[in-house]
Formats: sequence, structure tokens, C-alpha cells
Amino acid sequence: MSQADDERQIRDVIDTWMTATQAGDLPRVLSLMAEDVVFLIPGRPPMRGREAFAAASSAPGGKPRIEGKSDIQEIRVVGDHAFCWNHLTVTVTPPDGAQQIKRAGYTLSVFRKESDGRWVLFRDANLLTVV
Amino acid sequence: MSQADDERQIRDVIDTWMTATQAGDLPRVLSLMAEDVVFLIPGRPPMRGREAFAAASSAPGGKPRIEGKSDIQEIRVVGDHAFCWNHLTVTVTPPDGAQQIKRAGYTLSVFRKESDGRWVLFRDANLLTVV
Repeated sequence: MSQADDERQIRDVIDTWMTATQAGDLPRVLSLMAEDVVFLIPGRPPMRGREAFAAASSAPGGKPRIEGKSDIQEIRVVGDHAFCWNHLTVTVTPPDGAQQIKRAGYTLSVFRKESDGRWVLFRDANLLTVV
Repeated sequence: MSQADDERQIRDVIDTWMTATQAGDLPRVLSLMAEDVVFLIPGRPPMRGREAFAAASSAPGGKPRIEGKSDIQEIRVVGDHAFCWNHLTVTVTPPDGAQQIKRAGYTLSVFRKESDGRWVLFRDANLLTVV
């Protein structure tokens, strides 16, 4: 597979992440991350593993609607790893009619190619702030 | 050169970065980053390039003393790139006797091996917050 193919697959993972998140399709989102994924967010301990992401996304009280837009700044494939610098704009609409929250900013992510050839998110630093 | 050698060299870059920063040795710090380095910080535009870092570090009004401690969580070398997940604690002492500021948190960084074999910082997401 060419580097261009790998890069296109990573773009597909990011696009699918956004549409599956918007659709509230948690199993689909979980399929796009490594089992031992790590999410880094300012001011919080690292969120380690797919199970932790699933638990955080299944909090009681109704699901917010999450709409996102990504503007990829750079993807670099290096063998079976890749890193991606992205700009995200995310609008979160709470289920209880509370005010929408808009967040924007950059992410720096590492993707990994699994043994079956699929690219998944492996490490993710999320620098979004409320705007 | 073995992967262990590359990893040790990247650890040396990080250690040198901390000691050179503490010593106020800006030329040394600049030598540890790629010319087209990008620094990502929450709520700010990306800082692009070694020159921008130099300008930001040469602001008038006296230099703060910056003491840092790093606790590397993971380094993964993939060919001529590597990524590193790190925990930093940084204490900034302003030159005017104002109160110290302590910041802590994680970084996710990409390093690149230059054509002369040196490892330099290439992409850096800084998630430190005031503690």
C-alpha cells in the first residue's frame, strides 16, 4: 500500500470519527481507536484505554449532540505509525436544553496501523478551548 | 544506530532542553528544535518556526528563571521520526520579584532525525496548566 493510500485511510478514520460521533454511534467510534489508546486533555489525568473512553461517553443523563468539523493541517506516515496535526471546531448541545458550548483548537495525534491493516487512533493530545 | 541509541539521544535532547532553559541558554535550546518546528498551546495560534520561538523568548523586561522537571511516559522511535509523551513540571520565577508560577501537565511531541543524525523537536503539543 502506498503512503498516499495510508494517508487517505487516516483521513477516512478522522471523517468517520466525526460523523459517527455526530450520529451518537459509540461502537463505531470505539472501532477507530486502539485498545490501549491514550487521550491527553489539559488539567485532567490521561484517559487510558478504549474502555475508559466508552465509560466516559456513556454517562447517565442523556447524550449531548456533538457536531464537529476538522481541518487537517498535516499528516505524516512513517511506517506503521503516523502523526496528524488537526484543527477542530466542536459544538456540544446538551440534552436538557442548556446552552450550546462551542470549542475550537488543535489536536496532535498519533495513529497506528493494526495487524489487519486498519489505521486507529493511538495517542491524542486535545488542546481545544471554549470559544 | 540501534533503536535504543535513538531513544537515548532523544532523552538527551529533552534533558539538555531542561538544563539549557534553566541556564537561560537560548542558542542551545534553539539548536534542539527543527527550523520548521511547530508549538501548539491551548487557546493560542500555533507558534511556527525556530525564529518565532527565539522572538518569544527574547521579550524585553528581563528573563524569568525557568526550572523544569520531566518524567517521560513513552518514547517510540519509527524510522527517522519518534514521538514522545512526557509529564512536565515547570516553575517560572519572574525577574521583577512577582510571584512564582507553577505549571504542570503533559506534552505530546514528535521528534525528527536530521540528515546529520541529530534528533530535534519537530511538533509539540503543550497541555500544561497552572497548578
